[in-house]
Amino acid sequence: DDSWEVAGHRFTSRLIVGTGKYKDFAQNAAAVEAAGSEIVTVAVRRVNISDPNQPVLMDHIDPKKIIYLPNTAGCFTAEDAIRTLRLAREAGGWELVKLEVLGEAKTLYPNMKETLRATEVLASEGFKPMVYCTDDPIAAKQLEEAGAVAVMPLGAPIGSGLGIQNQVTIRLIVEGASVPVLVDAGVGTASDAAVAMELGCDGVLMNTAIAEAKDPIRMARAMRLAVEAGRHAYLSGRMGRRRYADPSSPLAGLI
Amino acid sequence: DDSWEVAGHRFTSRLIVGTGKYKDFAQNAAAVEAAGSEIVTVAVRRVNISDPNQPVLMDHIDPKKIIYLPNTAGCFTAEDAIRTLRLAREAGGWELVKLEVLGEAKTLYPNMKETLRATEVLASEGFKPMVYCTDDPIAAKQLEEAGAVAVMPLGAPIGSGLGIQNQVTIRLIVEGASVPVLVDAGVGTASDAAVAMELGCDGVLMNTAIAEAKDPIRMARAMRLAVEAGRHAYLSGRMGRRRYADPSSPLAGLI
Amino acid sequence: DDSWEVAGHRFTSRLIVGTGKYKDFAQNAAAVEAAGSEIVTVAVRRVNISDPNQPVLMDHIDPKKIIYLPNTAGCFTAEDAIRTLRLAREAGGWELVKLEVLGEAKTLYPNMKETLRATEVLASEGFKPMVYCTDDPIAAKQLEEAGAVAVMPLGAPIGSGLGIQNQVTIRLIVEGASVPVLVDAGVGTASDAAVAMELGCDGVLMNTAIAEAKDPIRMARAMRLAVEAGRHAYLSGRMGRRRYADPSSPLAGLI
Amino acid sequence: DDSWEVAGHRFTSRLIVGTGKYKDFAQNAAAVEAAGSEIVTVAVRRVNISDPNQPVLMDHIDPKKIIYLPNTAGCFTAEDAIRTLRLAREAGGWELVKLEVLGEAKTLYPNMKETLRATEVLASEGFKPMVYCTDDPIAAKQLEEAGAVAVMPLGAPIGSGLGIQNQVTIRLIVEGASVPVLVDAGVGTASDAAVAMELGCDGVLMNTAIAEAKDPIRMARAMRLAVEAGRHAYLSGRMGRRRYADPSSPLAGLI
Repeated sequence: DDSWEVAGHRFTSRLIVGTGKYKDFAQNAAAVEAAGSEIVTVAVRRVNISDPNQPVLMDHIDPKKIIYLPNTAGCFTAEDAIRTLRLAREAGGWELVKLEVLGEAKTLYPNMKETLRATEVLASEGFKPMVYCTDDPIAAKQLEEAGAVAVMPLGAPIGSGLGIQNQVTIRLIVEGASVPVLVDAGVGTASDAAVAMELGCDGVLMNTAIAEAKDPIRMARAMRLAVEAGRHAYLSGRMGRRRYADPSSPLAGLI
Repeated sequence: DDSWEVAGHRFTSRLIVGTGKYKDFAQNAAAVEAAGSEIVTVAVRRVNISDPNQPVLMDHIDPKKIIYLPNTAGCFTAEDAIRTLRLAREAGGWELVKLEVLGEAKTLYPNMKETLRATEVLASEGFKPMVYCTDDPIAAKQLEEAGAVAVMPLGAPIGSGLGIQNQVTIRLIVEGASVPVLVDAGVGTASDAAVAMELGCDGVLMNTAIAEAKDPIRMARAMRLAVEAGRHAYLSGRMGRRRYADPSSPLAGLI
Repeated sequence: DDSWEVAGHRFTSRLIVGTGKYKDFAQNAAAVEAAGSEIVTVAVRRVNISDPNQPVLMDHIDPKKIIYLPNTAGCFTAEDAIRTLRLAREAGGWELVKLEVLGEAKTLYPNMKETLRATEVLASEGFKPMVYCTDDPIAAKQLEEAGAVAVMPLGAPIGSGLGIQNQVTIRLIVEGASVPVLVDAGVGTASDAAVAMELGCDGVLMNTAIAEAKDPIRMARAMRLAVEAGRHAYLSGRMGRRRYADPSSPLAGLI
Repeated sequence: DDSWEVAGHRFTSRLIVGTGKYKDFAQNAAAVEAAGSEIVTVAVRRVNISDPNQPVLMDHIDPKKIIYLPNTAGCFTAEDAIRTLRLAREAGGWELVKLEVLGEAKTLYPNMKETLRATEVLASEGFKPMVYCTDDPIAAKQLEEAGAVAVMPLGAPIGSGLGIQNQVTIRLIVEGASVPVLVDAGVGTASDAAVAMELGCDGVLMNTAIAEAKDPIRMARAMRLAVEAGRHAYLSGRMGRRRYADPSSPLAGLI
């Protein structure tokens, strides 16, 4: 009964996984299965999704069952990203896409100026861009106004595994957003994913935390459970915090 | 296949829940069910487990299915705690018990001196005490040597919901222990429980975080998932942390 | 011997203080004195710096001794901010200015798009803008390229006192910057200011943390010491962190 | 005017430094000077304080100006510690001493059972023991009752530089104590020391954070300033924390 919607698609899974860094497509597919994901994101410029003479991801992850979300990993300008997604649309018909326009290799932080520009162009061309962005509440609103169908603030640098560095900003983005908010990047282990969901996010996207675990399949399962746990905790309305102890059982009136 | 054992009892659930602060026994039972717990802890001096003329917990939580772990909540001396558990053994035959000897009402921190003494006495009388304690790696070993069948360091003051304050000490206790380690007290929301498990603990005990959530039953479910998530994440072997970003897809060699 | 420079001005104090929220100009002046500040920032639209018929800040804080840094607090568009600073230049000749273009009242986060645009215009008109910004390493470089003489990332929302939420981003900005980096906003107490400096920032700007302390003058002194402490700690090269203990005195070879 | 007192001695400096790990006595003396310390702690079993044929610490740090606080570093039983301090008293007349009874080499956590016992014995023999202990509010009170003239909870394992792991417990100890509370162990950089003082501690003791800095003398100065900063911040009464921003200058009524 608890589902979320983006650009007319409805999902029950709130965990989007990547398709980089895995040993092979088979392991990737097993991780997707264990994660219970309904969406995978695919770097259009890296993953073979069209050359029939090479191993192709679709042979392992069935695009009829799992939504492919093409992304623009490796694009450093709006033009690059736009061109990449136009090619993806021609090749596979995808309109729901993940936009990322990177600013530099060291931090892989988004270039928000270019990201905003690319979002506008893509939206005007009928794309439904889910957009990787800084954890900036104002920029998140601007992306939304420019046509982003979801905003995807980073929790920490891509591939760092440092966990969500700034809970204040993620909370502020969630409070202000009219579109889904998904934490993209920075998750290192299960509790990080739970924290994202407890802040009220609609979902989490991750790649390295699963792919680089010693046992990626088990970690995928951990992440699935963590996202569900965090979501339920958010919906439950957590207890308040106290500065002092409070007994589980009244201390007065004991036998 | 992943189970843990304490004093000859084997469990698959790693989440122990309390029986204080609930609206009524029915809600408590529903929370236990949603938590998937195989153990509940019961304040011998507070909860009716024997008077047939009053509502009795056993009518709602079946002791044939769920292990009752009598605890000494409200005891401030070794003598008090020992006497309470002797009564419990006489009344219900319990030998696997949870010992807590409190130091003061404000913090509900254990009195470790009295706790250690009570552990020795109880062990000598054939009890199997699981022991609430400070997050002190040395004291944890001493309790173990005194006969504790499990050590249960607090994560934060009882009922505070502040989350695990000191991950260093919990990790050190886990590394040094030969008996199960369970975080007892301090959990406020799902990610806190996941953190405890990611540190390598064998389980988590909580009461207020579930009972005081706006929707306790859903929070119980969240906690069940969080404990499982954290356990799987621990077993998976998480990714390392990086100071800088690392691309999911190599940036070199792009199409 | 340890000084920093911005737009040709050289300073030994690394603590810039504000001129809002104080009881009166006298208390403000006393706080500036206790803070040892060489720069105060002044909201051009709020603080009387020109009307001789009203109490005027210059009567209390001597602009011959303390540099006035006019700011654009309360401006929500590039135009507003630019106009405000043009007026300030006409009135007082100020070229070294602090630009802030806010995105909304709730978070007081900067509107980075407008901020970047305003920076370009101001730089082209000969202003030397020190620029309030998000903690975004890419945007910080863009501001620098647009003519910012210093970048001033927020540590947490203005007036929140929450402390520096994201040490990773502040560190990344410092590592990438060719102009001074000052944490602006979010400091709540002395250790927060020390943290900013330990990350390698050139300075800290604060207002509420001093003005809203019960004893603002003493807190100003605390902040002065904290900024110096953090600066020295940064220059000292701190010890590494260890996962385990390490004795101050070798345990072997004891008498 | 702001001073503190322990066992009849009054001090203005709140920073106690160690005498281990320095390159030589000269560097140690310079660090003490830069730290502004009035007390140094000396491992009786390690540092030469009596053999006139070896380099002796007193030649560099004048015991007429700086109080020597003999400590029991390296002692793992109450007996060891007591014997060590008796020898120290015979050799140098010291009654104000620092007791530490370690539990194991890996964590260098105190053995609180032995520590409490040693405190009682030492107090009964007229010593004035300042006692290294866990961050346990109940144990802190017991030490006080046993005759400790100061309690010195660890912030993190000795020599780890991890900073204060549990602010809740330090705060609770401060709130409950009638004797001075000093954080002993765990400080890694200046802000850590400031945090200890902001929690209301009376002082901080450190060794590795200064001795292992690349520039120990400058770090000693940083620590002096940080301790003063934290103390002033504590006395100032810091601003409250806010979940949202709050403008330095009212947004309404702008020019």
